[in-house]
Amino acid sequence: MSGIQFPKPDPSIIARRETIIAGLAALVAPDSLITAEDERRAFETDALTAYRRIPLAVVLPRTTEELSAVLAFLHKEGVNVVARGAGTSLAGGAIPQEDAVVVGVAKMARVLDIDYANRTIRVQSGVTNLSISGAVAAERFFYAPDPSSQLACTIAGNIGMNSGGAHCLKYGVTTNNVLGVKMVLVDGTVVEIGGPYLDSAGLDLLGLVVGSEGQLGIVAEATLRILPMPEDARPVLFGFPTSEAAGGCVAAIIGAGIVPVAIEFMDKLAIEICEDFAHAGYPLDVGALLIIESEGSPAEIDAELARIVAIAKDYSVTTIKESKSAIETAAIWKGRKSAFGATGRVADYICMDGVIPTGKLPQVLHRLNEIVAELGLRVANVFHAGDGNLHPLVLYNINDPAEQAKAEKAGEEILKLCVEAGGCLTGEHGVGIEKRDLMPFQFNPVDLQQQMRVRAAFDPGWRLNPAKVFPLEGRVAA
Amino acid sequence: MSGIQFPKPDPSIIARRETIIAGLAALVAPDSLITAEDERRAFETDALTAYRRIPLAVVLPRTTEELSAVLAFLHKEGVNVVARGAGTSLAGGAIPQEDAVVVGVAKMARVLDIDYANRTIRVQSGVTNLSISGAVAAERFFYAPDPSSQLACTIAGNIGMNSGGAHCLKYGVTTNNVLGVKMVLVDGTVVEIGGPYLDSAGLDLLGLVVGSEGQLGIVAEATLRILPMPEDARPVLFGFPTSEAAGGCVAAIIGAGIVPVAIEFMDKLAIEICEDFAHAGYPLDVGALLIIESEGSPAEIDAELARIVAIAKDYSVTTIKESKSAIETAAIWKGRKSAFGATGRVADYICMDGVIPTGKLPQVLHRLNEIVAELGLRVANVFHAGDGNLHPLVLYNINDPAEQAKAEKAGEEILKLCVEAGGCLTGEHGVGIEKRDLMPFQFNPVDLQQQMRVRAAFDPGWRLNPAKVFPLEGRVAA
Repeated sequence: MSGIQFPKPDPSIIARRETIIAGLAALVAPDSLITAEDERRAFETDALTAYRRIPLAVVLPRTTEELSAVLAFLHKEGVNVVARGAGTSLAGGAIPQEDAVVVGVAKMARVLDIDYANRTIRVQSGVTNLSISGAVAAERFFYAPDPSSQLACTIAGNIGMNSGGAHCLKYGVTTNNVLGVKMVLVDGTVVEIGGPYLDSAGLDLLGLVVGSEGQLGIVAEATLRILPMPEDARPVLFGFPTSEAAGGCVAAIIGAGIVPVAIEFMDKLAIEICEDFAHAGYPLDVGALLIIESEGSPAEIDAELARIVAIAKDYSVTTIKESKSAIETAAIWKGRKSAFGATGRVADYICMDGVIPTGKLPQVLHRLNEIVAELGLRVANVFHAGDGNLHPLVLYNINDPAEQAKAEKAGEEILKLCVEAGGCLTGEHGVGIEKRDLMPFQFNPVDLQQQMRVRAAFDPGWRLNPAKVFPLEGRVAA
Repeated sequence: MSGIQFPKPDPSIIARRETIIAGLAALVAPDSLITAEDERRAFETDALTAYRRIPLAVVLPRTTEELSAVLAFLHKEGVNVVARGAGTSLAGGAIPQEDAVVVGVAKMARVLDIDYANRTIRVQSGVTNLSISGAVAAERFFYAPDPSSQLACTIAGNIGMNSGGAHCLKYGVTTNNVLGVKMVLVDGTVVEIGGPYLDSAGLDLLGLVVGSEGQLGIVAEATLRILPMPEDARPVLFGFPTSEAAGGCVAAIIGAGIVPVAIEFMDKLAIEICEDFAHAGYPLDVGALLIIESEGSPAEIDAELARIVAIAKDYSVTTIKESKSAIETAAIWKGRKSAFGATGRVADYICMDGVIPTGKLPQVLHRLNEIVAELGLRVANVFHAGDGNLHPLVLYNINDPAEQAKAEKAGEEILKLCVEAGGCLTGEHGVGIEKRDLMPFQFNPVDLQQQMRVRAAFDPGWRLNPAKVFPLEGRVAA
C-alpha cells in the first residue's frame, strides 16, 4: 500500500494556516482546537497505520451549532475537511492531509433522549458504540451492531463506514439500525434525514449517508433503534477438519434459512493466535472453528442448535462444545473480538474485508489459501461467515519491503477473488484510502461516475475527505 | 385532491408527436408501441383514479437493450417519461401527462436466475410480486414483501414505491429485500447497483433507488432475497372494545420487543365491510380487531402467542380466536387483503398512508377519529399496526363536491397529525402526486433542496416522472 498516492497539499492553504486557525479559535472553546504539532500528531493516522499525514489543525466541536459554524467557515476559506470519530478505521478513512482540518466528534458524546416505548435512542454522534448499549442496559435493551472496536469507536464512524460486527447476522449492520440523522453539510447547512419511524417520504437519503465515509457531510446527531435483550444466548464451538468443511457448513446453514445471531469463522492459525492471547477454550486440534450463537428461550435455543448440529454432522464436525456459563460466553467472545489485536502481537498484517455470496465460501477459502501460499506468506482467517464477510489477515514483516509488496499483492488478489465470486471489495471497513484504487475493479466507469455525481450533489467542490473512496483520476464534479 | 396542479403540457412536444412515434417504432416491435387513443386511455391513470391524463404514447420494451434505446431516443428528443409497472399505485405515481411517453415494464417479465444456495432470485422488473413467490414455492421459498395488490403489481413498481405489506413487520419492506438492480438512466445509460451480496462499496445508491418513484431511472432487472418458508404460521384474531385499546396493545407488544410476522389492525367499520365481503370469520361484536400472525415451529408459535395473550389481557381483550386450518388462515388473510376493494363497494374513499411511532397509536387513533367525525364523515381504519403504518380510508361521495372537499381536508389533517406525532407522510404508497404538495409540511426547504440536488444528479433536466414527489415551485436543477 506504500504506493497509494495522496493529492499534493495546496501551498496556498498552508500559507494561510495562521488566519485559518484564528478564524476557528473564534468559533470554539480553546480546548476544542488543537494546533500544536505534537498534539496534532495524535491525529496523523487511524488503524491503517501504514500512512501518516499531520493535519493543518484539529477541531473538536461540542455542539451541532459549533460544528455548523466550523464547516461554514472552512467552506468559505476553501479548506478541505477530514471527519473523524475515534480513528479506529481499518481502511484509512480518517487519515488526514497536510492542507486539511480534521473535524472530530469526540466531544459530542451526549445521549439526548431514550424512548423505550418506541425502542429508539437519540445521541450526539461522538458517543461510543458500547456506551449506547450501556445507556439502555438497565432496562434490558441493547444496540445491535457490535464492531470489535466497540469500546472506542463512535456512532459517527459507524455510520460513516456502515459498521457491522459479530452479531449482525441476525440484526443487520449499521444501516439497518439507524432511523435518522441530523447532518451538517460542507457549507454548514444542517439537514435532517429520516426520523423515529420506519419509512421515509421522498428520496431515502439515509441509506446514502450510511457508509458515505465522511464525504457527504458530518453527522451531528443520530436516532438509533434499540432492541430488547434476548431471554438467553448461547455460543457453541464447532470444530472441523478443514476450512473448506467449515465453509461448507456455513453455506448449508444459511442455505437452509437458519439465522442464528452470529456465525464466526476462524482457521487454524487464527485459533492458535486467539487462544494463546485470550484463553477462550477454543479446541486446538481442529482445522477450522465456527462460533455459532443462538438466542431466545432455552427451548428455542435447543431447537435451533439441534438443526445446526444435524447440518454440521454432514460436514464432518469433530468437536461440539456449548458454553455452560456467562463466564465461558464472555471468554469465547473476548477471544474472537481480540483477533486483530492478538494477531498484531505475532506479526504485522494487512486485513482484508471482502464480501462473497455465502454459497461460495468453500471454493473461495480454498483459492484464498492457495494465493497466499503461492506468495510464500501466511494468512489467518477470522471473519463473519454468516454474512459472507471475509477478513483474511495476511501476515508479513513490515521491515522487509519485498515481503510488504507480496502482502499487498496478496490483498489485491484476494479482493479480486471476492469480486469475481460475485461479491464486493468491502463489507464493513469501508473503502477509505486502502481500497480506493481497486474501485474500478468492482465498478465500471459509468457506475462510478453515477456515484460521483451523487457525491457532488452534496459536496460539489470535493472538500470532504477528498483523497478517499474514489480514484483520483476521472473524478466528476457538480 | 381535485386541486392538485399538473405542469402545462409542452405544445412543441405534442406538435412533434408523429416524429416521436416514428422514432419509437424503429426501436421496438409493433406490439410494444401503443398509439391509438382508445388503447392509450388504458394508461391514463392508476389506482388513484381521481386524475386522468392520456399520454402521448405508451412503450412496453421487452429487454434492457430496448428500454435503453427507448430512453436514449426520448432523451435526445427532450420528451418526458413516466415509468409504469402495473398501474396499481395508490398515490398517483404512474399517472401520465399529455406530453409524456409512458414507458412500462409489463413485457419484461422473465425470471432470469434462481440461486437457492445463496437465497437470491434475479428477475426482469416487470414480473409480478406474487409470481416471484410462485417461482420458488416448489422449493419451499418465498419473497417476503406482500402488498395487497401482489397478484398484479410488479417488482419495478414495488422498488419505485418501496412497497410493504401485511407480513413486512418481521421481514422488512422492499428496501430490505432487494440486493441489486440494473437500472437505465434518463439518457439510456445502463448502471448496475448492488449485487447478490450483503454490503456495497462506495456510495449505497441502492437504498436511494428504492422508493425513488421513477425519478432516478427505470429499473430493468432486480436481484431479490428469497426466504425459506417457515415450518408453520398461525394467525390469531384479537378483539378489543375500542380502537384505543387495540392500539395500546400493539404499542405494548412492540415495546416488549416481540416481533410477530404480522400485526394488522381493523376498526369496527373495516371489520364489517371486510366480513361482509370475504366471510373471513371476523368477530362483529368488537370495537377493533388485531390479526396477529406468529410463525415458526408449533412450540415457538405457542410460546410467542402466550406472551402476546398475556399483554392483550392488560388491554381488555374480549375475543381471542386462533386459526385452526389452512382454509381459515386463507380466509382471514383474504378478508384483510380485500379491504380496499371491499370498501370501494360501499363508498368512494381516499386512502391515507401515514407512519407514526407505534408508541403513539392510541392517541393518534383517537384524534384521527375525532378529525373525521368533526367533518361529518366516516372512516374505516385498516392498517399495518406493528409498523405504525396507518391506512385510514375516509369515505365520501365522489359526486358531492362539498363532501369531496371535506374528505380531502380530512386526509390532509390526518397526514399532518402523523407528522406532528413524530411520523411521516407516507409508508408504502409513495408521495406520487397525491402528497406532493404536502412535502413542505414534512421537510423544510433545506432538506427538500438536498433531496432535489440528489435527484438532479440522476436526471438534471427533470424528464423522469416530473410532476410527482416534489412541489412544482422551488425546484432545484443540476
